[in-house]
Amino acid sequence: MTYRAPVEDLQFLIGDVLGGRELFALEAFRHADFEVVESVLAAGARLAAEVIEPINQPGDQAGARIVNGAVVTAPGFREAYARYVRDGWSGLDMPREYGGQGLPRMLQAAIAEMVNGACLSFGMLPLMCRASAWLLAEHASAAIATVYVPKLAAGEWGATICISEPQAGSDVGRIQTLAKPADDGSYRLSGSKIFITYGDQDLTEQICHLVLARTPGAPAGTRGISLFLVPKRLITTDGGLGAHNGMRALRLEHKMGLKASPTCVMQYADCVAYRIGELHRGLSAMFTMVNTMRLEVALQGVAIGGAATHRALQYATERPQGGDPERAPVPISEHPDVRRMLLLMRARIEPLRALLLEIARNLDVAAAAAPEAATRAAAAALAEWLLPIGKACGADAGFEVANLAVQIFGGQGYVSDAGVEQYVRDIRVASIYEGTNGIQALDLVTRRLGRDSSKRFDAFASRIRADLKRLAGQAEVGQIHAAVGDGLTRLERCTQRMVELNAGSPRDAAAGATPYLRLAGLVACGWMWLRMAAAALGDSDFARGKRIAAVFFAEQLMPEAALLETQACLGAATLDALAPNASQW
Amino acid sequence: MTYRAPVEDLQFLIGDVLGGRELFALEAFRHADFEVVESVLAAGARLAAEVIEPINQPGDQAGARIVNGAVVTAPGFREAYARYVRDGWSGLDMPREYGGQGLPRMLQAAIAEMVNGACLSFGMLPLMCRASAWLLAEHASAAIATVYVPKLAAGEWGATICISEPQAGSDVGRIQTLAKPADDGSYRLSGSKIFITYGDQDLTEQICHLVLARTPGAPAGTRGISLFLVPKRLITTDGGLGAHNGMRALRLEHKMGLKASPTCVMQYADCVAYRIGELHRGLSAMFTMVNTMRLEVALQGVAIGGAATHRALQYATERPQGGDPERAPVPISEHPDVRRMLLLMRARIEPLRALLLEIARNLDVAAAAAPEAATRAAAAALAEWLLPIGKACGADAGFEVANLAVQIFGGQGYVSDAGVEQYVRDIRVASIYEGTNGIQALDLVTRRLGRDSSKRFDAFASRIRADLKRLAGQAEVGQIHAAVGDGLTRLERCTQRMVELNAGSPRDAAAGATPYLRLAGLVACGWMWLRMAAAALGDSDFARGKRIAAVFFAEQLMPEAALLETQACLGAATLDALAPNASQW
Repeated sequence: MTYRAPVEDLQFLIGDVLGGRELFALEAFRHADFEVVESVLAAGARLAAEVIEPINQPGDQAGARIVNGAVVTAPGFREAYARYVRDGWSGLDMPREYGGQGLPRMLQAAIAEMVNGACLSFGMLPLMCRASAWLLAEHASAAIATVYVPKLAAGEWGATICISEPQAGSDVGRIQTLAKPADDGSYRLSGSKIFITYGDQDLTEQICHLVLARTPGAPAGTRGISLFLVPKRLITTDGGLGAHNGMRALRLEHKMGLKASPTCVMQYADCVAYRIGELHRGLSAMFTMVNTMRLEVALQGVAIGGAATHRALQYATERPQGGDPERAPVPISEHPDVRRMLLLMRARIEPLRALLLEIARNLDVAAAAAPEAATRAAAAALAEWLLPIGKACGADAGFEVANLAVQIFGGQGYVSDAGVEQYVRDIRVASIYEGTNGIQALDLVTRRLGRDSSKRFDAFASRIRADLKRLAGQAEVGQIHAAVGDGLTRLERCTQRMVELNAGSPRDAAAGATPYLRLAGLVACGWMWLRMAAAALGDSDFARGKRIAAVFFAEQLMPEAALLETQACLGAATLDALAPNASQW
Repeated sequence: MTYRAPVEDLQFLIGDVLGGRELFALEAFRHADFEVVESVLAAGARLAAEVIEPINQPGDQAGARIVNGAVVTAPGFREAYARYVRDGWSGLDMPREYGGQGLPRMLQAAIAEMVNGACLSFGMLPLMCRASAWLLAEHASAAIATVYVPKLAAGEWGATICISEPQAGSDVGRIQTLAKPADDGSYRLSGSKIFITYGDQDLTEQICHLVLARTPGAPAGTRGISLFLVPKRLITTDGGLGAHNGMRALRLEHKMGLKASPTCVMQYADCVAYRIGELHRGLSAMFTMVNTMRLEVALQGVAIGGAATHRALQYATERPQGGDPERAPVPISEHPDVRRMLLLMRARIEPLRALLLEIARNLDVAAAAAPEAATRAAAAALAEWLLPIGKACGADAGFEVANLAVQIFGGQGYVSDAGVEQYVRDIRVASIYEGTNGIQALDLVTRRLGRDSSKRFDAFASRIRADLKRLAGQAEVGQIHAAVGDGLTRLERCTQRMVELNAGSPRDAAAGATPYLRLAGLVACGWMWLRMAAAALGDSDFARGKRIAAVFFAEQLMPEAALLETQACLGAATLDALAPNASQW
């Protein structure tokens, strides 16, 4: 039952596939030795299995509650969080000037998979802290950053991101929360926000709310939105925690899953608020945070998919069922259709694990001071391209694979005791929050691709072409090599079409956005399989398993590229043939 | 929020697409007038919306419980079930000699969609009654049938199907429950059964358990299994309900969904049992029931998928979000990606609704005394072919479409209030129970297709070929016509391959069983779209919507046929390259 972190795979990816050693050789990380990776992964795996996983199923059953107007987290969450903070996990990749350890995001991403795989509801709070710390480090004044960032980086204070309102979900431009300037340079903020993760909690004594709001007379839409820091408790002149600041968790949502993560309806009544960054530029400041969040949501998908795969494999090799009735039954892992499902789970999750570490590595390179500007720019472009793909595909794959685990468990999988149906319920929201997968697809096609520039796409395609060239003719990777080559050709053709549609017929591009994103994700995953298979040398079980799974991916999954290409290029004509009103539907 | 049954669509399918009038003209149904269809559908829709849907969400929240050793159903279930029985819904398609109304199963299937769409947990009990009544009518002695069938047909007594044991799920041959012959010709049955739906309940005063068990010295495997009727209360000499028969619901499972349907662990301790049918032939007797159950599980998928589609459409046309920020937001149904999802929901569910009614109609024809033997045989062959396809595709589509509804609702969809996440949780089990979808696929490929005979497949393919010929050259259905033609060619090629593999290399056939079933399902759905589009005449909103949805299916979904054909023919080589133990995984 215990969660087992994929330490061997992570070590393989960081060390042998994705160039972790080269990363540690950069000026920014020279304070650490590459050997730290092994010890951090091992310690992270222990934390996940021993401290965090034990609160997962009880947390699902008990949930978070509101008692006397304050949120009480599920049993064990306080102790687990205190341990997480005490052992210094919060600041792993935080800047050293704020008390962090300044290690690569790539390593942080590996740890985030473990934490989320052990308990998704738990992982939400450290995520909020980390994302807020990055945001304030980048956009806040020195006076604010000095006070808040070290506390957030250490995990001693909690944080929230407050965007959605009842009338403004995906359509952020329509928020109505209002922040009025006060005489002292601060603001007074009032309004309601919904879907606020850990909007209140009993794990930290301070909560830093990062709230999007309008100011009086601001322009309509996203160009009139500013970002504010609204602390739960005001800071006294001596730096301590003072008076409460007039916010309240009105209600917790009853959700399909993530029951131990309190999702609050928050009310802000004339709260003291500090503007972060420029007036009316709140959304772009917030994007620092949203990008961290999107990578993490993708990691949640991989985390749950990985945990579900491990559980299903364990069950399938132990559950006897079928075979000659005169003899002992065989483990269900012997049945071809079960093997198909198990390999499908691996084939979906492992390349996304690699892809997300690749994104994190590129964020590391892009942010590092030392490498030359062109290298940083190429890394940034690649990360920007891959983020919406990783978010949507990670979320979808996590859900799909969790469902496959339920299927392999059969009737037992539908029963809560086994713990796999919780995976399905918990991860379902990943395709919705931090920008629905449909929004990711639109973002990819309209913003990241654009009308004439495909700079980001080129950064992606040229990397794949280079790997295809490097590995051409190597028999061991022949099948995945050919499959990726075919997939990339289709994707390039489809990309050209999308760029044309963006210029002349954006509604047709929007109609194909989701299959286009899926095609890009399929090719990206194929690319990762190619690199993994090429690096899986020798005859160990691990290496053989990798190479076989790569063949499975090439045979079973890459052929979907043709279907996705067809779907992406269909345009909006049939969709728009139905009248706007419901009567024809 | 109220459930709206798809009355217009059902009426269209029964009357204009699937030949319901011809069915009512058969000798077996001449006691009824075709016009009864309209009034039954209207009354069923009222029952579903007014009586059953109101208990759905409260039932999910309260669940069924065990109090003092007996199951207590969720609030409102007693009243709703009493109403259902009183209004005569139980016996709709039951033989008139047992007090039923003797109407076609096709009409019963339409009503079953409504009942399940309104509350899946509720629908399970009438299903058990109906399936048991059919089973006993066919296999029990006259003495038993006379006592039990009228009560079950009327819904006055409840019933269960008891197959699974902890060590015997999909592998039915390994059950251990033992029935020893008693002196009076009855048996004494002892053992444990798991996953017993409505194994105990407070809705009926009698429960008829139909239990698979071994007899002393019976051969191993499925050939040593007999079927027993084990009533909860013994029948007294004057025909009343007497002593309790020594069975007990030990525990209820905590499940992902279907929370108001009690899933019991049952213990039978030396219970009086009556053998039904021949010794050691229990499994084949049980199959009468299992087939009814499989059709109903498929209907559950369509029911939930249909309900979810209706809710999502309602939400999408009412929820304003996006568009020019200076103006009022537009309904989200205006966004291409949302339209794509809404049409995808229709495209998945509507052909399955048609297909399941077609199966029911063929069961009607096969069972009717009057038509000539060849017609009956062809109808039976087609129904046998379509049943595993309908079960697996109905279950999968219901889940997929319920998830799309959650996606369209966005964050609200993840919150329980909206009621759509319950659809996802409730329908998830449909791919598992009554034979997992993997078992359905194996059944299709190995048993229904066989090694040399493809009689059942031919009954299917020849019907489609006839419709393709009939509708050739009709411009309005040109796209779906071409798509179905292509899909059928692929399926025929793939079927030939499967028949060869069954003879020479059954493990390779098993490896491709799931994609093969999906390909067959895709072609069957395309066939239904072709027939629906051809019958959707005129310029009404309904007819236009059907024709557009058929084009969508042809454009977006039929191209998957190529992928499925590829996957189905891959064989087991890559799957079997991994060693049996877990270390390489």
